[in-house]
This record gives sequence, C-alpha cells and structure tokens, in this order.
Amino acid sequence: MNIHKFVMPEVIFGNASIQQVGESCVRLGATNVFIVSDPGVMEAGWLDVIVRSCRQAGLSYTTFHDITINPKDKEVEKGCRIYLENECDAVIGVGGGSSIDVAKAIAILVTNGGRIHDYEGVDKIRYPLPPQVMVPTTAGSGSEVSQFSVIVDTEAEKKMTIISRSLIPDIAIIDPETLSTKSPHLTASTGLDVLTHGIEAYVSLAATPLTDVHAKNAISLVAEYLRPSVASKMNLEAKINMAMACLQAGLAFSNAILGAVHAMSHAVGGKYNLLHGAVNSILLPHVMEYNLLANPKKFADIALFLGVDIRGMSNMEAGNKAIEHVKQLTMDIGTPQRLADIGVEKDQLKRMSVSAFHDTCMITNPRDVTIEDIEELFRKAW
Amino acid sequence: MNIHKFVMPEVIFGNASIQQVGESCVRLGATNVFIVSDPGVMEAGWLDVIVRSCRQAGLSYTTFHDITINPKDKEVEKGCRIYLENECDAVIGVGGGSSIDVAKAIAILVTNGGRIHDYEGVDKIRYPLPPQVMVPTTAGSGSEVSQFSVIVDTEAEKKMTIISRSLIPDIAIIDPETLSTKSPHLTASTGLDVLTHGIEAYVSLAATPLTDVHAKNAISLVAEYLRPSVASKMNLEAKINMAMACLQAGLAFSNAILGAVHAMSHAVGGKYNLLHGAVNSILLPHVMEYNLLANPKKFADIALFLGVDIRGMSNMEAGNKAIEHVKQLTMDIGTPQRLADIGVEKDQLKRMSVSAFHDTCMITNPRDVTIEDIEELFRKAW
Repeated sequence: MNIHKFVMPEVIFGNASIQQVGESCVRLGATNVFIVSDPGVMEAGWLDVIVRSCRQAGLSYTTFHDITINPKDKEVEKGCRIYLENECDAVIGVGGGSSIDVAKAIAILVTNGGRIHDYEGVDKIRYPLPPQVMVPTTAGSGSEVSQFSVIVDTEAEKKMTIISRSLIPDIAIIDPETLSTKSPHLTASTGLDVLTHGIEAYVSLAATPLTDVHAKNAISLVAEYLRPSVASKMNLEAKINMAMACLQAGLAFSNAILGAVHAMSHAVGGKYNLLHGAVNSILLPHVMEYNLLANPKKFADIALFLGVDIRGMSNMEAGNKAIEHVKQLTMDIGTPQRLADIGVEKDQLKRMSVSAFHDTCMITNPRDVTIEDIEELFRKAW
Repeated sequence: MNIHKFVMPEVIFGNASIQQVGESCVRLGATNVFIVSDPGVMEAGWLDVIVRSCRQAGLSYTTFHDITINPKDKEVEKGCRIYLENECDAVIGVGGGSSIDVAKAIAILVTNGGRIHDYEGVDKIRYPLPPQVMVPTTAGSGSEVSQFSVIVDTEAEKKMTIISRSLIPDIAIIDPETLSTKSPHLTASTGLDVLTHGIEAYVSLAATPLTDVHAKNAISLVAEYLRPSVASKMNLEAKINMAMACLQAGLAFSNAILGAVHAMSHAVGGKYNLLHGAVNSILLPHVMEYNLLANPKKFADIALFLGVDIRGMSNMEAGNKAIEHVKQLTMDIGTPQRLADIGVEKDQLKRMSVSAFHDTCMITNPRDVTIEDIEELFRKAW
C-alpha cells in the first residue's frame, strides 16, 4: 500500500450556521476581514448576513465583489491591492467556487507576493496564508474544503490549477439555507459538478479508502436528491442533502484529486465564460466511457451508488449502466447536452486538447491519454 | 436540524509512514521535540524508529516514558517539568492511548500552566498548545485524531475527561506495521475499544451524518478484521483494516462524543489499573441492552454493519441480534466476560456508579440514566 494523506478544514454545517462567520474569524485572530463575494450573492442578500455577523463580532471589514464566473488573474490582482490598502488580516469567501477561489488566491498573494501564475501546479506556496473562512452558497465547487484554487490565465486563455495544503481553509461554514436562493438552472449545473467530483475522485489513481467513503456518499446523495433539489427551491431536505453531497465530494476530490473531465473542462473554461458544472456534465459521460476500461470494478460500484440493481451483471455491464444513468440524470434536469449548444467553437477543440493534456488534474486520470485521445473525446462531446 | 461541527487532524496513513514523523515536526516549526512513549513501545523498537527519524530531520529531542496504563496526573506533571527544563517546542506521542493522552496533557500544561485537573470538562483550555504529532501503535484509543485526553485523578480515584478542539493533534501518523508487535491479548482488548467507539458514537445524541459515515465503517471493519487480527501478528491486511477502523472510529467519537460504556469504564479505570478496552468490552453488551429502547432503528443498523441479515426483522429484533453478535465476538477472541474476573470488587460498584454518572461522556448517552440505573448495569456486568 502507498502512504496517503487526508486533510480537511474544520466544518460547521447546518441551517443558520452562516451567522457564525464573524465569531469564527475572531476565533482565528482576525480583526479586519476582507470579504469576497459576487453580484449574485449580494442580490440574494447573503453578503448582508455576513457583514452583519462580522459587525456583531466587532470586526472591521472591506468587501470586494468585482469578480466573474471562471475568475480571472486580473480580478485576483485587483482584490490583492484592495486587501493590502485596507490592511486586512483574514479573508472570507462567500458564494460559489469563483468567490472562494478568488479569496484563496488573494490569500496567497498578500503573504507570498508575485503573480498568481507563479503558484500554478502542486505545492508552490512558501509562506503561511492569513486565516481563511469560506461560506459556499452553491453546493457545487467544494472549494470550501479543498486544497484547490482555479484561476483563469487571461493571456494564455487557460485555467491554472493551484494545489497546496495551505489552500485548505481554516473553517468551512456550510449553511443549506443559502441554497434556496439558487435558480433551478444553477442548481442543476452545480449539482452535476458535485457528481463529477464524486465520480472522478472515486476512480482517481490517488483514491484511498478514506476518499472512497466520501465519494460513495456524494454520488448516492446526488442520485437521490439532485432531481428534487432542481424541482423546488423550498425543499429543504433536498438542500441539506445536496449540501452534504457537495461537502463529501469536496473531501474526496481534495484528497484524491480529479481526472480528465476537470482537465478538459478547465481548458474550456479558460477560453469561454461558461458554467463549470454545465461543461463538466457534457463531458462526464464521454470520459466515463473512455475510462471504464481502467477500472471496471469501480465503475460497477458507481452504478450501485447511483441506485442500479447490478445483480447478475459483469463489471463492464454495470459500468455501462452507470454511464446511462448519468446521461439520464442530465436529461431529466435539462442541462445542455453538447458543447456546440453552449457556444464552444469547433476550431478551438485542438488547442483546448493541448491545454487539457497539460492540466494538473490529468495526472490522476485512471486511463492514460494522448492529446489525440482528448481531441477525440472533445469531438464526441461537441 | 442542529448545527454541527466536524474537525480532524491531518492524517498520514500507510506502512512505513512512521518514518515521516521527523519531517512532520519540522513542517510544524519544531526544533526540539518532547517524545512521550511507554516501556512496551520502547521494547518493540518503535521509539528507536521515532528517534532516528527526528535525528535525520535535524531535531533535538528529549524522551519520556515514565507512564502507566490509565495514565496519572502525577505522570503528566513530571513530564511537564522535564519538557520545560529541556525547553522543548513540540510534543510527539507514540504508543497506545496512554502515551498520546499524556503527550496532549503535557501540551496543555506547558503553555497554559496550573494543574491538569483545572481542564477537566469541555473547552477549558485558554492558550494555544505547542505542535502535536501523534503516532498510535495499538489501533485502539483513536486519541491520535480526537479532541479527548483522559487522565486519572489519583486522589479522587477517577478519570478526568478533558475535551477541547485544541487537543486535536496537528498530524496523526498511522502506520499499520506498528500493530504487528502487539500481543493477541492487547489486539483483542484494543479492537473491542474501537468497536465500542464506533457503536457509542453511532447512537450518541450528538451523532451527525458525517460521524455516522465513519462509525458505520469502523463497525463493519471490526466485524470483518478483528478476529483475523487477533489470530495472526503477520496478517498485514487485517492490521491495515484495523488501523483504518480505529481511525474512523476516532473521527466518529471525537465529533459525536461517547456514552455510558465510556462513562462507566472511566469510573472503573480511575480505581483499577485495567486495560480500558477489556473493561469496555465487558460493559458494552449490557449498555447496548439498556440503550436499545432509545433508538431501535440505529441498533438495527448496527446489526447490519456487523453482517447480520436483518431482512424481515423488526428494529428491536435486529437490535437484539447486534447485541448477540457483539457478545459472540468477545467470546471468540477470548476477552474477559465479567468485572469480577478482572479484579473489580463488588463493594466499589456503588461509588463507581456515582463517578460514572458525573462523567462528561454520559451527557450524550442516548437513554437517560440515574445513578441507580448505572449501579444495576454494573451489577449485571459484575
């Protein structure tokens, strides 16, 4: 057996837990916090809740929300300047993966200097980061518990994956009630991002018994609760279970890393401002088909976690059933089925294949890939 | 739903991972470590391995092994003096629960001062502790991942349970190979301690979906691997799985707390120098019988985790099967069946019942208890 490591932040989980954000920062020694959010989070009113909690805890604060989906290097640099001008001493990220990834990236720059590009890859961060408290509002990225931050290199038109133990936040505050303000469209795409995390972590070359436990739970919870969560903003049972699925998928992939879906999706997201989860969900069944050969037993397990009765089936048969089930789920909740439908241009596939081939997430994909294999997968999904 | 918290240390798991102890301390900023072990660990050669790893990492060190099972307040005080005299800046605990609990207790005193008695109960620690790296060698206590330290108050002849987030070590290094030096007798009693952690955490009033995941896995792994682990020192598959069971049981009970078995066992261990796991295993079936009423569904789940085919059974029937299975396991691996057999005196039961009633672990027991109820349970187990 290989030696494996497992790390996670302190997790606070439950309805109304968002109100603990101020006292959580105080507990970490913060006095003047830098709050990263986005326009959608502000409109939903969650930034106000955060600000109120910080005020009640006696904290000074600066807010920053000048970010977009698939957040950019320039947004990180701007945030860093404002953090330093205001002499902040901790970061809060509230929102989807974008807010949280930007908050982490700012935390890197304020104590380590340089450009965010300097930290692409694994373990490039040298000095300790300021305290980080993250409050996800999408049940998607899992960034609140992960050692990842993904930022777009706007010149190279690609996503940079930064992986480091230092990026694991100190505290993740997961409040399922925040999910009730999401549109069905966003619930669907972020939910499929969770499923992708669970599946890629489960078949990753770096999977361990501890990550498997969480990946399994995440997949089962998505299979049971994503449809009702898309169907109703007010189904709190579904929200609680999707929040738990997101958390467990995050614990799994933070420690097992990901695979070809994410490598390819990062290449797409570096060029096009598309919802990460929507891109993942188009690519996922194609990559599963490609990867099935690498670990039929684990794909058969996935079928079981998805609720398939696999008795009497070979592992390959059961693995194929898992792929069918994932496709059916994406159709039931109405997410886009082809890259062409969401604006990806055919003449970009070759360039994106090269970018995906070099993405950090490709290292743990269970089946070997060439640039040609990736291009073939892109063409099938286009 | 209640808001719940989940915290754990960084975990390094795998054969030969013990050799990472030195570099792990360096990563935490240590220069001069205080190593707590016990005579058994020294004899098995594990202390030498730790010392070599520290030397190779360029660390100075002081060793301390003047401790007994059910470690005492006076041992902690002595260790604290030696730590301070040698100006150490981090602790390593290597061994069973005793070494690790003493290492934690010393960490409290060296930065917080006072007597260890001042910290009994929940959240009494005020100042940050020095870095803590723990290396379990018994697959029993789970203390390497927990927020617990249990120390005997020698005057009052009772165990003090100290619970605090500060007691979660920074890094837990779990090397299944260290389990191959344990006697069958010790493997049996520590393995039943793991089972008790899993069961008490699963039915605890403070259980959450995240602790349930780990409790479930721990119970299933013990059911499958404890017998073969007792049967052979060299069955490494069994050792790996018992180490994983211990880890997951530790994650479960650290966050869900325990119940009446531990409250009562602490009362016994405060008076008699007996193996904690052996006492637990005698008490466990009796307490399960008593607690069954409080949550028949969860006891039925436990039967399932233990491998019972519960189809067609009511929850109460399945719960009773779980109790039978636990009893059978204790008989198969030959642990003592009665408190009288291990030297507990009948005239002490009343006094120990009062002590158990006031133990911190009783708070989360799923069924209400009176001092009389506890005395009745002690009599049944005597």
